[in-house]
Amino acid sequence: METIKIGLMGLGTVGSGVIEGLKKNQKEISERSGIEFDVSKVMVKDKQKKRMVEIDEKKLVTEPEEIINDPDINLVVELIGGCDLAKDSVLKALDSGKDVVTANKDLIATHGKEIFEKAKENKRNIYFEGSVAGGIPLIKPLQESLAADKIEKVIGILNGTTNYILTKMSDVGYSFDRALEEAQTYGFCEADPTNDISGLDAAYKLAILSYLGFETLPDMKEVYCSGIENVSQRDIQYAKKLGMEIKLLAVGEKEGDGIFLAVVPCMISKEHPIASVKGENNALFVKGNLVDEVMFYGPGAGSLPTGSAVLSDIIKAGKEMFKEPVKELSAGSENNKYKIAPREEFEASFYLRLVVKDKPGVFSEIAGVFGSYGVSLESIIQEKKEDEYAEIVLLTHKTKIKNLDDAIADLEKRENVYELSNVIQVEKS
Amino acid sequence: METIKIGLMGLGTVGSGVIEGLKKNQKEISERSGIEFDVSKVMVKDKQKKRMVEIDEKKLVTEPEEIINDPDINLVVELIGGCDLAKDSVLKALDSGKDVVTANKDLIATHGKEIFEKAKENKRNIYFEGSVAGGIPLIKPLQESLAADKIEKVIGILNGTTNYILTKMSDVGYSFDRALEEAQTYGFCEADPTNDISGLDAAYKLAILSYLGFETLPDMKEVYCSGIENVSQRDIQYAKKLGMEIKLLAVGEKEGDGIFLAVVPCMISKEHPIASVKGENNALFVKGNLVDEVMFYGPGAGSLPTGSAVLSDIIKAGKEMFKEPVKELSAGSENNKYKIAPREEFEASFYLRLVVKDKPGVFSEIAGVFGSYGVSLESIIQEKKEDEYAEIVLLTHKTKIKNLDDAIADLEKRENVYELSNVIQVEKS
Repeated sequence: METIKIGLMGLGTVGSGVIEGLKKNQKEISERSGIEFDVSKVMVKDKQKKRMVEIDEKKLVTEPEEIINDPDINLVVELIGGCDLAKDSVLKALDSGKDVVTANKDLIATHGKEIFEKAKENKRNIYFEGSVAGGIPLIKPLQESLAADKIEKVIGILNGTTNYILTKMSDVGYSFDRALEEAQTYGFCEADPTNDISGLDAAYKLAILSYLGFETLPDMKEVYCSGIENVSQRDIQYAKKLGMEIKLLAVGEKEGDGIFLAVVPCMISKEHPIASVKGENNALFVKGNLVDEVMFYGPGAGSLPTGSAVLSDIIKAGKEMFKEPVKELSAGSENNKYKIAPREEFEASFYLRLVVKDKPGVFSEIAGVFGSYGVSLESIIQEKKEDEYAEIVLLTHKTKIKNLDDAIADLEKRENVYELSNVIQVEKS
Repeated sequence: METIKIGLMGLGTVGSGVIEGLKKNQKEISERSGIEFDVSKVMVKDKQKKRMVEIDEKKLVTEPEEIINDPDINLVVELIGGCDLAKDSVLKALDSGKDVVTANKDLIATHGKEIFEKAKENKRNIYFEGSVAGGIPLIKPLQESLAADKIEKVIGILNGTTNYILTKMSDVGYSFDRALEEAQTYGFCEADPTNDISGLDAAYKLAILSYLGFETLPDMKEVYCSGIENVSQRDIQYAKKLGMEIKLLAVGEKEGDGIFLAVVPCMISKEHPIASVKGENNALFVKGNLVDEVMFYGPGAGSLPTGSAVLSDIIKAGKEMFKEPVKELSAGSENNKYKIAPREEFEASFYLRLVVKDKPGVFSEIAGVFGSYGVSLESIIQEKKEDEYAEIVLLTHKTKIKNLDDAIADLEKRENVYELSNVIQVEKS
C-alpha cells in the first residue's frame, strides 16, 4: 500500500479533530482509499502544553522548517489559522513540492490569488474544504456535482454564532445580549465575538464561495458586510407577523457581467428552506441554471465535523497524488471572471421601521418621498401609537439600493419623521 | 483540447435534459474541464417521433449495436430506463471498453453487483449520480466529501410524488385521493403511480444509498417496504397534535454487523430538518461518526436537474479518462460488507390508533397486553368517543418490532378491541 506522510501544522480544535478522526476510522480510510495516512510530524507552539488528543511526543516539532524541509513529508496540513505564519508556511510548502490542505478561511479569502498562483507554478494542489462551513460538504459538491451548472445565486447561513443568537431571539424571545451570553457559555463563539457579530467571518466564507461558484475571488473590501448588532426584538416580532424570519445571510448573485456579494441581516419567508436552519447550524442554498435549487445543511464548526472535512481533503490529495501524472488546480482555474458590482446598484426589497408624528397627511408625505425617488411601496402599516407618535412599518418592492438611500436621506430631514429605527433587506428568492 | 464522444441511449425526459443542459452550458463545461463533449449518436426507438429538444437527425440510430460497436465512442450514457435492454447494453458497452454513465436506479439496485463486477473486469468506470434524487448531489458527496466518515444512519425523502401527497394532506387538508390527483395533474408522478405510492421507487434508491454508505448492496427483497396508502387524514391530525409530521422515509441504519433498510411512513418531529422538506422536493439526512449530521436537499426529479447530475458524471468520466492510467471503480469496491438485518429485529417507537369499547378496565387491559410482550408505553390518550366506542392513540417507547407484532396479534383477538386503525413508526433521531 502507498503511504502519505503528513506534516500537520497546528494542533488546536481542528487539528485535534483530524488526529482523532484518523484514529477512529483509520481502517476504513485505508481500505477505501488504498492509501496509508501517517501523521509523521506535528508542529505546535509549545511542546509541553496539555493536548486534547494523545500524540507521540517524538512527533512534536516547533519550527515550520522541520516540516517544510522534510523530504519524506509529501502533504502539509495547515491548521494554524490567521494569515502571517500560515501564509508563509503554505507558500514555502508549495515551493518545496508538497501538496497542501488547509481549513484557513482568512488565508484563502485574503491571499487566495497568490496561493493558487504558487500552486500552479509548482504543479501542486491545494485543498480547502474545511475552510467553509465546517463539516458540510460544500466545496467538492460545487466543484464536481454542479460542474455542469452555471451558478446564478448562493444564499448561505455561514456563521453559527449569529444564527444561534437570532434563533434564540426569535424562538424564545431572548434579547441580543442574553443570546450572545448563552452562545459564549456553550462555546459556540470565540472569546471575542466581534468577527462573528459584524459578519466578517461569514464574509470570508462568501469570498471563497464566490471563487468556487462564480470563478471570481473578490478583494475582501469588495464584499459588503453588515452585522446583526442592530437587529432588535421588535424587528423580529414584525418579521414573524409578516411570515418571515430574520437571518444573517451571505448572498452572492450574478447579474450580467457583475456579481453582488453581501453579508446582511435579511428577512426571509418562513417557507424558504434556509429559514428553518436553527441554532448553530449552517447551510448553503444554491441556484444553478440546470439543477434549479439545492441546499446543503449541517454543522458549521466543531472539532470532528471540521476534522471530517479536512480528512476528506487529505484522502483526495492522497488519491490524486498517486494517480495523476500532471497536476491541475483543484478549483476552477479562473479567479477573475466577473466584476464585483457595487452595493448601491443591487436591487432588493426592504423593510423599514420608523417613528413618525401621528397626524393627518404624514402617511402621504412619506409615501410621496419614496415615490419621488422611484421606490415603490408594497405596504405601509401603522403598528403602534404612543402620545403624538406612531410607529410604522414599510415594505418596498424591489428597488435599487441607491434610490432607497436617497429616499432615506430625504426622509431623515423631514420634521414629521422622528426616527428611522431600522432598515432590513428582504430576501425574495 | 481532448474530445469525448458520447453515445446517448434514450431521449426521454432525462436524455432531453442532458442535451439541453450541454447546449446551454457548453462553453463553461469545456472551459472548466478542458474537454470537448460531443454527443455523436443518440439511440431512440422511433426516429420520426417529435422531440422535446432539437437534434440533428443524422445522429439518430435505433440499434444499441450502432453505439456499442462504434470505436469512436468512448462513453455510453444509458438513459433508457428499465432493466432488460438497459442491462444488456450497459454490460456490452463495458465489455467493448467504454465507460458508462447511467441514471437508472432499477438497474443499479437490481443488477449492481453484476455490473460493478463487469466494470472491474474491464477496468472501466461506471457513474450513476442521476439514479438517486435527481439533481441533488448525493453520490459524489457520500463517496468523496464523507470519505473519512463511518456512516451510521441515513434518512431520506427519496420520492417526490409521495412527499407531494403527504404535504398537501398535511398543509391544506386534502384527502389522499385528491392530493394524488393533483400530483398527476402537475406531472409530478408517473401515469401509473403504483411504484411511487408503494414505496418501491424509494426502496430502489435506498438500496443504492446502502451500497454507497454501508458498502452493502442488498437484494431488493431484503429492503422492507411499506407505502402511504393507509395514511389517513386522521393520523395526520394526530401527528400535528404530537408536534410531528408524517413522511415516507427511507431509513438505513447500522447496528453492529447488520444494517436495517426500510421504506416506511414515519412520524418525525417538526423540529427535525427533514420534516420541513415540502412538496415534490427530496432530501437526504446523513449521520456520520465524525461529521455528525448533514442534510442534502433539492429537486428529486425533472429534466434539467437530473440532466445536471448526469452531466456532472459525464464531466467526471471525461476527466478520469484522460488523467488516470489505471481505472478503479468509482464506488467503494466492497458491496457485501454487512448483513441486512431482518425487519422484526429493528427497534423503534410506534404510534398506534385503535377503536375500543368505552368501558371501565379497557385501558388497563390494553396496557397489560403491551406489557406482557415487553412493549412499554410512553402515553395512552383517549381522543374521541362515539356511542359505546372510544378512539385511543398510543405511543410506545423503543421496542423490537417482533414484540410489537406479537402484542398486536394478541390485541386483535380481544373482544374489547373493535379495530386497530393504524400503526405508524415514529422516527426519533
